[in-house]
Amino acid sequence: MTPRRGTGDDTGDEALTACPPPDLMLEPLARAALLEDLGGYGDVTTRAVVPPGAVCSARLCAREAGVVSGMQMAAIVFRLTDAALRIDILHPDGSACAPGDVLMRIEGAAAAILSAERVALNFAGRLSGVASLTARFVAETKGTRARITCTRKTTPGLRLVEKQAVLHGGGCNHRIGLSDAMLIKDNHIAAAGGVGAALGAARRAASHMIRIAVEVETLDQLDEVLGTGGADVVLLDNMGTEALAEAVRRVDGRMITEASGNMRLGRIGQVAATGVDYISCGALTHSAPILDLALDF
Amino acid sequence: MTPRRGTGDDTGDEALTACPPPDLMLEPLARAALLEDLGGYGDVTTRAVVPPGAVCSARLCAREAGVVSGMQMAAIVFRLTDAALRIDILHPDGSACAPGDVLMRIEGAAAAILSAERVALNFAGRLSGVASLTARFVAETKGTRARITCTRKTTPGLRLVEKQAVLHGGGCNHRIGLSDAMLIKDNHIAAAGGVGAALGAARRAASHMIRIAVEVETLDQLDEVLGTGGADVVLLDNMGTEALAEAVRRVDGRMITEASGNMRLGRIGQVAATGVDYISCGALTHSAPILDLALDF
Amino acid sequence: MTPRRGTGDDTGDEALTACPPPDLMLEPLARAALLEDLGGYGDVTTRAVVPPGAVCSARLCAREAGVVSGMQMAAIVFRLTDAALRIDILHPDGSACAPGDVLMRIEGAAAAILSAERVALNFAGRLSGVASLTARFVAETKGTRARITCTRKTTPGLRLVEKQAVLHGGGCNHRIGLSDAMLIKDNHIAAAGGVGAALGAARRAASHMIRIAVEVETLDQLDEVLGTGGADVVLLDNMGTEALAEAVRRVDGRMITEASGNMRLGRIGQVAATGVDYISCGALTHSAPILDLALDF
Amino acid sequence: MTPRRGTGDDTGDEALTACPPPDLMLEPLARAALLEDLGGYGDVTTRAVVPPGAVCSARLCAREAGVVSGMQMAAIVFRLTDAALRIDILHPDGSACAPGDVLMRIEGAAAAILSAERVALNFAGRLSGVASLTARFVAETKGTRARITCTRKTTPGLRLVEKQAVLHGGGCNHRIGLSDAMLIKDNHIAAAGGVGAALGAARRAASHMIRIAVEVETLDQLDEVLGTGGADVVLLDNMGTEALAEAVRRVDGRMITEASGNMRLGRIGQVAATGVDYISCGALTHSAPILDLALDF
Amino acid sequence: MTPRRGTGDDTGDEALTACPPPDLMLEPLARAALLEDLGGYGDVTTRAVVPPGAVCSARLCAREAGVVSGMQMAAIVFRLTDAALRIDILHPDGSACAPGDVLMRIEGAAAAILSAERVALNFAGRLSGVASLTARFVAETKGTRARITCTRKTTPGLRLVEKQAVLHGGGCNHRIGLSDAMLIKDNHIAAAGGVGAALGAARRAASHMIRIAVEVETLDQLDEVLGTGGADVVLLDNMGTEALAEAVRRVDGRMITEASGNMRLGRIGQVAATGVDYISCGALTHSAPILDLALDF
Amino acid sequence: MTPRRGTGDDTGDEALTACPPPDLMLEPLARAALLEDLGGYGDVTTRAVVPPGAVCSARLCAREAGVVSGMQMAAIVFRLTDAALRIDILHPDGSACAPGDVLMRIEGAAAAILSAERVALNFAGRLSGVASLTARFVAETKGTRARITCTRKTTPGLRLVEKQAVLHGGGCNHRIGLSDAMLIKDNHIAAAGGVGAALGAARRAASHMIRIAVEVETLDQLDEVLGTGGADVVLLDNMGTEALAEAVRRVDGRMITEASGNMRLGRIGQVAATGVDYISCGALTHSAPILDLALDF
Repeated sequence: MTPRRGTGDDTGDEALTACPPPDLMLEPLARAALLEDLGGYGDVTTRAVVPPGAVCSARLCAREAGVVSGMQMAAIVFRLTDAALRIDILHPDGSACAPGDVLMRIEGAAAAILSAERVALNFAGRLSGVASLTARFVAETKGTRARITCTRKTTPGLRLVEKQAVLHGGGCNHRIGLSDAMLIKDNHIAAAGGVGAALGAARRAASHMIRIAVEVETLDQLDEVLGTGGADVVLLDNMGTEALAEAVRRVDGRMITEASGNMRLGRIGQVAATGVDYISCGALTHSAPILDLALDF
Repeated sequence: MTPRRGTGDDTGDEALTACPPPDLMLEPLARAALLEDLGGYGDVTTRAVVPPGAVCSARLCAREAGVVSGMQMAAIVFRLTDAALRIDILHPDGSACAPGDVLMRIEGAAAAILSAERVALNFAGRLSGVASLTARFVAETKGTRARITCTRKTTPGLRLVEKQAVLHGGGCNHRIGLSDAMLIKDNHIAAAGGVGAALGAARRAASHMIRIAVEVETLDQLDEVLGTGGADVVLLDNMGTEALAEAVRRVDGRMITEASGNMRLGRIGQVAATGVDYISCGALTHSAPILDLALDF
Repeated sequence: MTPRRGTGDDTGDEALTACPPPDLMLEPLARAALLEDLGGYGDVTTRAVVPPGAVCSARLCAREAGVVSGMQMAAIVFRLTDAALRIDILHPDGSACAPGDVLMRIEGAAAAILSAERVALNFAGRLSGVASLTARFVAETKGTRARITCTRKTTPGLRLVEKQAVLHGGGCNHRIGLSDAMLIKDNHIAAAGGVGAALGAARRAASHMIRIAVEVETLDQLDEVLGTGGADVVLLDNMGTEALAEAVRRVDGRMITEASGNMRLGRIGQVAATGVDYISCGALTHSAPILDLALDF
Repeated sequence: MTPRRGTGDDTGDEALTACPPPDLMLEPLARAALLEDLGGYGDVTTRAVVPPGAVCSARLCAREAGVVSGMQMAAIVFRLTDAALRIDILHPDGSACAPGDVLMRIEGAAAAILSAERVALNFAGRLSGVASLTARFVAETKGTRARITCTRKTTPGLRLVEKQAVLHGGGCNHRIGLSDAMLIKDNHIAAAGGVGAALGAARRAASHMIRIAVEVETLDQLDEVLGTGGADVVLLDNMGTEALAEAVRRVDGRMITEASGNMRLGRIGQVAATGVDYISCGALTHSAPILDLALDF
Repeated sequence: MTPRRGTGDDTGDEALTACPPPDLMLEPLARAALLEDLGGYGDVTTRAVVPPGAVCSARLCAREAGVVSGMQMAAIVFRLTDAALRIDILHPDGSACAPGDVLMRIEGAAAAILSAERVALNFAGRLSGVASLTARFVAETKGTRARITCTRKTTPGLRLVEKQAVLHGGGCNHRIGLSDAMLIKDNHIAAAGGVGAALGAARRAASHMIRIAVEVETLDQLDEVLGTGGADVVLLDNMGTEALAEAVRRVDGRMITEASGNMRLGRIGQVAATGVDYISCGALTHSAPILDLALDF
Repeated sequence: MTPRRGTGDDTGDEALTACPPPDLMLEPLARAALLEDLGGYGDVTTRAVVPPGAVCSARLCAREAGVVSGMQMAAIVFRLTDAALRIDILHPDGSACAPGDVLMRIEGAAAAILSAERVALNFAGRLSGVASLTARFVAETKGTRARITCTRKTTPGLRLVEKQAVLHGGGCNHRIGLSDAMLIKDNHIAAAGGVGAALGAARRAASHMIRIAVEVETLDQLDEVLGTGGADVVLLDNMGTEALAEAVRRVDGRMITEASGNMRLGRIGQVAATGVDYISCGALTHSAPILDLALDF
């Protein structure tokens, strides 16, 4: 059986995008963020200045082009602040947006909308930033089989929503965390006393429901892995483009190949052309600038 | 690449047993259980009756033979109640015990030991019950390649510790929950409009780091799965022993095979002899009687 | 004043069953169980395979005869996953069920129902298991004044719902935890320096709103307790049937009598015939196998 | 069996005072209070003004006479802020203090002591206020069998520590909350359709481990209660002193008697002289002024 | 620029009162208080005695005159217990009430209303007590520019709602906690090595968005503060009335003046007449007796 | 009194840096991040591969130059995973680092260090990224009175640590959240019916301990603000450099001036030269790329 991998024309992530995680999973995050911002006293400006009973209609708009994420989250933020707000999502998570596009319309109590505005924008701007940067990486893989994937280098507390944002941008997801797949790195190999010992221990301990990946930095290490029977996935770390191409040839479909390390815009097309299955990039989540969004009244 | 699977002589789970999850992961559970039992007022009997300053030495003992689990948990329970207790684990998690064996020694304030006793026993008795029942299932697989595995039919809130208990009993673990592996069941297939559609959707959406299992109940369904290119794991549900043997033949190593449904003591040996890779059994966690443990002073 | 006790024709627990604890008390448990199963990513199979917008009608059915419990909990689980699900409970908690009976009907988004299915079943199967085992114990007390009661040997985190399940099965409840009643055991007596000292300390410290029980293992100990003026309840632990009968005679209505230790099906009728008021049994909650339930679509 | 009750020379509450609830039960409260005061940024004054590394010695002192409570809590507050602080309790909970008395000495990092000061004082002042007011009520019962007890009219969130403070002041505790004893009030009686129906329902549903109290406001109602066989405790609500005395005579030891309603300093001696067993007073916890404490450096 | 301060005819707090903090901020407090009272089993009396399906209409009434607070909180308490209750607030937070006034009407399931009654009253009585005491202090400032303000001497866990209660009573609020404004006290000054050093350090570290207050106990200390360029606010602590008047003269509008220490009813008018801007009083929150409220059926 | 403001030679933030918030405030964040990554099963790779008992020494190193932040947080992360780890911080928060610098040394159990590595790096890399970007903005203000400040555009959940990181980079902090200072924006002004009405309402409602800022976008709006008596701070939003200079002239020290909107590296020097007191920039926290850090063994 050839190990399963993604292809350039996959559309499955669209399924994950179309069927989001239940609000139940996002609400604690939204609630905590609101309470963090509301502090010990609530929105003292709005409480002092906005007349009781004032209502308004607000539009969450894009100020620049990109890919939208965080609409589910922003809607939860507004609803938690005031369950009576009417919320209409015009650009769902995963859709492209142009400057000026209205992504969401919110109507109801002005005080609630103003108090929730910043938290909603903090989520939506950041997550749309991740989706938009992902889309730029994905664009460079066009015409290849390579797929862009994220890493565990996510913002503490935001892993779920950042991983969704990567999906929204057209990328795909790596393991969720430490417990759902094995990724054997150099330090594991050193502690185990060699790649063979590490892979053997991993294979013995692994559930039949989790995958094993092993990281190599040189072609020699790759050969060593292949000599031990391999793993499900080989992570080719910090290799030059030529070495990557040679690695793909040597693996010859026996493992899923993933290139990582120094994966920056401008270089992706060339890496994708080596034939690797996946290109993983921590910057998608650890260094994406926000997408500029604003709430207009 | 032949899909990786466990073998009868695997020792890897011993690694997981030897290197337990950090206390950090178990403490919230221990803390919640203690507060549940302490109620709104604390241990009113002990507070009234035990003289302040009284110290004692207690032994957590087995009243029947089995396999020990829950010692890590019990130790956390005692330490949370009184960090000054001296705790000595004599039978670590995963070891066999005979009636009368002293599993753990606890010394220090009598009030703390008495107040924590029931919660510590509730964890240790229940988890040792899971480990001991698992060991009985495992014993019936002797001489075959089949391995015993648990399911998601765990006690709400106790999944992590019950899965560890299965390891302690010599079994191995299935997926952790809904998010770390795909298991396509009949209802998924019905909703997707057929096994081919379901498997196709799963393959497109699946990360390269998670596995796909598909459940079949008949050999015809199995053939249909094989016809679509298969999955990582096929779960042969509620099949008779002969059908299982035929299924293993038809799969012929192209998928990992897992038998489930009606897996009870006395039948396991016969199922294991069909050549299936895994036998999964919900009863390990949902219907295991406790192992009889007690605290002697 | 003769101490109050239950009688075989009591119907009061039906009141507790008819008027359940508010959802507020069960929701944290349901929420935690759902998040435990959903993990860090949600139900990846359903998200990938079930078409967005698919709706279905599911029936929670009994596969074997027993007494139902956990319907309140299962309904909360489904509602937390998707507040728009329509839920219809056909067999409320405390009712008997036969194989094939439809206990609950759930209609709405297929994805929500599939994602919540296992958690709902884990609660309902386990709690119906407790209720059903309790009912079997209760049946053996028929024609006597004895009542079946549970202990503090409950699953950590599930005490409230397991105690409700005991009510659903026709049993009654013991103290909730350490803070609401005094139960003086052998170790307390040893620490206090004798049963008289222990009882004296307990009486002095006890609020007028809590009861005092004392555990004895021999008739001599019972005489000692009676000699000190007694307690509200005497727990006759690990006594043979004849000794129990003699103990009941000696107590002569001055204390409520509770038999415990080695209380197994088949022996209950004989114990009940001794005239004890209560028979307590840890196995009701620590070793009940689940009742086999399933969700049919 | 005559129902157990307290007497004027009881010393049992001293046991509860000497053996406090474990820190585990108080820490969440201390932690929440500290985080409430620290806000989103910490103690900005101390951080700006106190030189790093500055150490000091502080004394928690009484500014007025009273009974000390909250020392366990204050110690937890300081330790949570800085585990390296040296804390010495000179006047433990339950001891009397005079103006100027040093209750606790704290040594270590000046920044930590200053940041925790207000929270520690808020607990200690409030709880000592409860203890001190209780002691004044208790003093008025001198020479009688009556005991002072608190109610459920406690500060939301502080029930456990306020109930301990009542013990420290020489009082005793009522039920903890709604689940550990039955207290049938006028509205329950109205809903049940009469006191007989209410008591009957209560007796049938009550566990053998919980007590039943019933509230009456007139002697006629008391007679009705006595006519139905009574309860464990009768709460004589809002009765004049003569009516109380008559009620005690009519009860004649068949129930524990508790007087409540309009119990204020100056009237207690007279109420206690009626022979009631308990006098309950909500003001102990809902209206006690703080005891003036301060932290001196 | 003259520092902003309040004046006797300010109405701004009415804005804060009219626009309360979102329920989101109060719900955790209400939920925790309900669970504290419900304990491990729920309201056992109501569950046993009140017939299932019984409905009733209850009125939350004032038994004495005062100022209402806690209606928002009480409404949340009832709704959390049963979302189907119909709640009608007749006297909103901040309004005056006379004995017999109906503050809130609650209709629906009798069991829910009875189970939530005590918690709702505990909040409403306590918070109305704070509001009512505040109103008495405010009344004594009539005709002066002085405003009454609270302190950080609040009940642990209740700071937000107690500060709202002070607003409801016509007072105004001080800083929320340690992180939102600087208040340099004697111990800070001692640690910093003098008032000049402390103020300098504070000014350098302070954000431009937070205010600095400094506490002085003598006119000499005040002169020293003025000599260093002052702060936004000077807290004149424990000064006699004449010293306060002299202090106001010396400050001459260059700082906001706040008098504190020994501020009791009967003295406030005289203090207010000195021309101080604010009078702060810990007793508003640490020693206010409750306002007597009750639930009538 | 001229409103207090910062100057170019301020050193006060160093005080805040030297005296960090107590670990108590950061631990919940560290704990949640660890549990997020550990998932439901712990670090399955390390548990399988690293021999029990293996110890190692690791160095947290900088791969590029910048300003360090997150060392307090990383130390908490490691300690929570294993309290026995020895941790030595060589470059404390706020210090500059060069490529190759060892920031922290960690010694102890290899399994614990490997399991905590990613979470520690996720915090430290992100926070050092914020500090380093801040330092680049601060560098451009050299020789001017202008100070760099952050905004509320922080990562949900990380506000406290990101604000500390801004301090570490030499910047200063804005308000913490919605409750500790008033910031009147265009939407508030619209809702209030004009800047005069808004400022009046704000002044009436504001505590004497919080500051009021008002946002203007044109010189005409500024004149309007000045005409109403102003606020503590005026936020000059999205103005060109010349308009900013003119605004500073018109304010003439009567309000603290803050420039915001489109504040990017390269433009700061020019903005700072206009004489504004503060330059606020959301990008410091919403778009800072991480500083490249790694753990070497």
